[in-house]
Amino acid sequence: MTTPISGVVPPLVIPTKNGALDVPSLEKHLNRMIDAGIHAIFVLGSSGEVVFSTSARRKEILENTVRIVAGRIPVMAGVIDTETERVIEHIRQAEEIGVDAVVATAPFYALQGEAEIYRHFRLLHEATELPIWAYDIPVCVHTKLSPNLLVTLAKEGVLAGVKDSSGDDVSFRWLAQANAEAGHPLQLLTGHEVVVDGAYMSGADGCVPGLGNVDPHGYMRMWNAYQAGDWETVRKEQDRLADLMRIVLVQGVQGFGAGIGAFKTALQLLGVFETNEMPKPVLPLEGENVAWVEHILQKTGLLCG
Amino acid sequence: MTTPISGVVPPLVIPTKNGALDVPSLEKHLNRMIDAGIHAIFVLGSSGEVVFSTSARRKEILENTVRIVAGRIPVMAGVIDTETERVIEHIRQAEEIGVDAVVATAPFYALQGEAEIYRHFRLLHEATELPIWAYDIPVCVHTKLSPNLLVTLAKEGVLAGVKDSSGDDVSFRWLAQANAEAGHPLQLLTGHEVVVDGAYMSGADGCVPGLGNVDPHGYMRMWNAYQAGDWETVRKEQDRLADLMRIVLVQGVQGFGAGIGAFKTALQLLGVFETNEMPKPVLPLEGENVAWVEHILQKTGLLCG
Amino acid sequence: MTTPISGVVPPLVIPTKNGALDVPSLEKHLNRMIDAGIHAIFVLGSSGEVVFSTSARRKEILENTVRIVAGRIPVMAGVIDTETERVIEHIRQAEEIGVDAVVATAPFYALQGEAEIYRHFRLLHEATELPIWAYDIPVCVHTKLSPNLLVTLAKEGVLAGVKDSSGDDVSFRWLAQANAEAGHPLQLLTGHEVVVDGAYMSGADGCVPGLGNVDPHGYMRMWNAYQAGDWETVRKEQDRLADLMRIVLVQGVQGFGAGIGAFKTALQLLGVFETNEMPKPVLPLEGENVAWVEHILQKTGLLCG
Amino acid sequence: MTTPISGVVPPLVIPTKNGALDVPSLEKHLNRMIDAGIHAIFVLGSSGEVVFSTSARRKEILENTVRIVAGRIPVMAGVIDTETERVIEHIRQAEEIGVDAVVATAPFYALQGEAEIYRHFRLLHEATELPIWAYDIPVCVHTKLSPNLLVTLAKEGVLAGVKDSSGDDVSFRWLAQANAEAGHPLQLLTGHEVVVDGAYMSGADGCVPGLGNVDPHGYMRMWNAYQAGDWETVRKEQDRLADLMRIVLVQGVQGFGAGIGAFKTALQLLGVFETNEMPKPVLPLEGENVAWVEHILQKTGLLCG
Repeated sequence: MTTPISGVVPPLVIPTKNGALDVPSLEKHLNRMIDAGIHAIFVLGSSGEVVFSTSARRKEILENTVRIVAGRIPVMAGVIDTETERVIEHIRQAEEIGVDAVVATAPFYALQGEAEIYRHFRLLHEATELPIWAYDIPVCVHTKLSPNLLVTLAKEGVLAGVKDSSGDDVSFRWLAQANAEAGHPLQLLTGHEVVVDGAYMSGADGCVPGLGNVDPHGYMRMWNAYQAGDWETVRKEQDRLADLMRIVLVQGVQGFGAGIGAFKTALQLLGVFETNEMPKPVLPLEGENVAWVEHILQKTGLLCG
Repeated sequence: MTTPISGVVPPLVIPTKNGALDVPSLEKHLNRMIDAGIHAIFVLGSSGEVVFSTSARRKEILENTVRIVAGRIPVMAGVIDTETERVIEHIRQAEEIGVDAVVATAPFYALQGEAEIYRHFRLLHEATELPIWAYDIPVCVHTKLSPNLLVTLAKEGVLAGVKDSSGDDVSFRWLAQANAEAGHPLQLLTGHEVVVDGAYMSGADGCVPGLGNVDPHGYMRMWNAYQAGDWETVRKEQDRLADLMRIVLVQGVQGFGAGIGAFKTALQLLGVFETNEMPKPVLPLEGENVAWVEHILQKTGLLCG
Repeated sequence: MTTPISGVVPPLVIPTKNGALDVPSLEKHLNRMIDAGIHAIFVLGSSGEVVFSTSARRKEILENTVRIVAGRIPVMAGVIDTETERVIEHIRQAEEIGVDAVVATAPFYALQGEAEIYRHFRLLHEATELPIWAYDIPVCVHTKLSPNLLVTLAKEGVLAGVKDSSGDDVSFRWLAQANAEAGHPLQLLTGHEVVVDGAYMSGADGCVPGLGNVDPHGYMRMWNAYQAGDWETVRKEQDRLADLMRIVLVQGVQGFGAGIGAFKTALQLLGVFETNEMPKPVLPLEGENVAWVEHILQKTGLLCG
Repeated sequence: MTTPISGVVPPLVIPTKNGALDVPSLEKHLNRMIDAGIHAIFVLGSSGEVVFSTSARRKEILENTVRIVAGRIPVMAGVIDTETERVIEHIRQAEEIGVDAVVATAPFYALQGEAEIYRHFRLLHEATELPIWAYDIPVCVHTKLSPNLLVTLAKEGVLAGVKDSSGDDVSFRWLAQANAEAGHPLQLLTGHEVVVDGAYMSGADGCVPGLGNVDPHGYMRMWNAYQAGDWETVRKEQDRLADLMRIVLVQGVQGFGAGIGAFKTALQLLGVFETNEMPKPVLPLEGENVAWVEHILQKTGLLCG
């Protein structure tokens, strides 16, 4: 990797069939996004069922993704697990398969403080030559990575970038400013697909939009407008995508089941996925909730009414 | 009030001297902001020591503000208290003094749900003819006002606007969209002074920036650029203001003491306030922390080095 | 006050009729509890609608309580409000009416740290000669009072006791131990009516059970058994009271509306209160929920089937 | 297993040396506890470094424990991981090695609701014939298991017991009552070593005290007194153990590093462990913190001064 990763980097949503990885759908899905122009793919992220997948399944997903992508774009691999030694095992697997960067969260489950988080990332760095991205996702790991910690680790050569899913746009602004002052050692990608325009205002280097699985073209148009300084188009595209994001506002389901459930259902309705199966113990959307997703896809022009 | 309130609406920070309201400083401070062109003033907000002030002090602050403003701009008055009957008492006081709108939070301290919040705002509406704004500030009241609740209350004629200090920019985007679809019954102001540009991208009708007490001109330039569609200037002004906001990054103090403590110290250093006194039990900034605020004011050009 | 308060100290639940204080029911209710042998009464606590009541209503409640109690037992008065100056106003009112102790929480709404909490209690102490009790109720004020802070303030003569509604029995055990080591400067009362036996094991000096409004005799029997070292009776009485506490497990209502709603409904069913009215914006229990309360009262022998 | 597990069941703390499992210390440690009379051992719990250990290390710990225990007491094995399929892999490993029960938490990391938690435990039950215990530890998994859910799963034959580390003693009381009413399908063990006496008052079937690694005899004396109805001894032993638990009140370290760090340091000082090494990225206690642990061990009579 010589060029830092920037632009539109969707977190890959995983198609399955009867519980098995649905490789033909995966291929169709990756090619559709690459054809739309995405700049990289983030595989085994939170949206990519990483915590639902056994090590064998993680390997299968990673190998197939790398094979299908075939060097057309960089592949970032989530190496998400509870603590250092377990994360390093995932890094080894990613190294063997061959990826361009790894993405790790703060440790989780056991109660720890910032000193342990700092040491965690340093130990990962000692264990690999791959670029390491920090994944800031307090809603899952229940710790926020502070701008100060991130920029310190970047200056020490430990971190190459941040995927920010913190929901804290004030912190993100300050991170962007501290990063700029430090000479931009970090690539900063936002994970909040509904307010990417605000992150671009803050100087983000790109986005990791789960919704980009459903509408990669929309995120590409927004990125290109951002690069051209055409903010009215940035805003208009974001409004349209925020409208599309309402597919997740289903009834009686929450969290992962609602969000990824809606993405998978949309991809099935769009003919990309064969099923909208979800990993155990989550159930797929059905009935009225499928109709809701279809309604929004039609309203936003992705499906013909 | 015939025209809805929009634009730059600073939440008034309160000068005191030996514990008493410092009326000359208040006059200087209000006139400085009005001369800068602010569109309205929000008095007795969280930044305005509302929860630190007795009823008599609240009255004194409100009367002096209304007298000094003298109709030049609208006055919005916080009527913040724990539950309905107590809030209505504050509304009565605001009515007698004569304000243009009142601003109320969800009930707090006692544990309640959305049904009680809904009834709370309806009861306030039955008690007054003043326009009512909802103040969404979960960090203080520990309840988030959902876009759905807010738009419902707006359609019923209960709410005239929202001051959003929720820190949840995804929710704000959806609120803006739902409000637009409903015919824009609500005026939407963001309270997050560091990312106002993102809120403008989402379609905000203005901002309530605590930092606007220190630098009203900066927020006016950003607003005017927004109105002109000049997004590069919006962004540049926001970056400068985010840099200025670092005055709050003091050591050994947190929350209200750091934020309002820094604003008061800056206003003292700028010659607007006579003291940087804080309400009991909070202590004013001192020593290195005052030097830090001075350093940032110089760095951002508000004070000569 | 020469003897420290200990034993059973119910937090007074307030009867109203058409929104007004129902003085005859209040008299009946207080006399019933005093006749049962309770050691003191805590008026204007969280259960006592303190945050729902205007200053005038607080005064009315306090005056009537003091008049009815007529020196038979000590009266502790909640002086609960957001910050120091407002709390001191309530202390003045309590002093004028004449109570035996005041009970204050940590400041709430504005974000603060332990230094401000410490200063808050010291300032209250400087303002009054009444014994001050700390009310540890993080579920309402969102700050936990640490054992270290409480014992420090006790050694300095600032605090006379603690009403612990923290739900943190580990912390309570350590508080009890640190208090014992310091020579028992604090009286420690638990507010968790379902596990008073565990607090007695930890050495609590008594309890402040909301459910004691409904069944003061049960809590008196448990206290007397505790004093006699008869732990099997302590446990048996607690089990019975935990069973009775299920009156709060109503449907479709949460928090204050469920808990105090159930207590008021029980008192109405027992013929003590005339209504089960709740303060605005909360609605009283009705229909199936009233039937549920009745069912539990019958099951536990407080009402005849 | 024909007899349900009850009594004192310490969660095994793990000795290591230069990062490797220290088998001689493990043997010494297990034999010391078994000689003290403990009723079962819980291996690979939160205290047992489960989330810090790779699958290979988990296997090594489990195999050695089963070998050393050699059927003298039942072995319960933690199968803790993020989601269903990963947990089932750990169950398979536990089955092969041969344990008496497995212990699983609610799913964590991904956001889910009670429906998914219910399905999770049902799927685990379908996958194994081993008794399944639910591990209620919201501080780590950020979900509380409700008494209603637990008793429902018990009635359906899915759950055999609960290890309660919820810190919610009110909920535990209600769980104990609901379990008794259902015919006691669940064995209930508390994980809160400082207030085991309160849990015994609530009817707990035993405890899982981390501190039991350091002082198994104390917990045995408390258990035996409980069985004999000698509550004064229960209370006295608990007070002594609460005093001993202060070893965790070290400076500058929090959470796992403080708690398990203190247990390991105590075991090293007692001559049971060779080192007080901690798993990456956590550092062992040192300097003043080691001296503090030593001081408390002396004060409570476990070490000679």
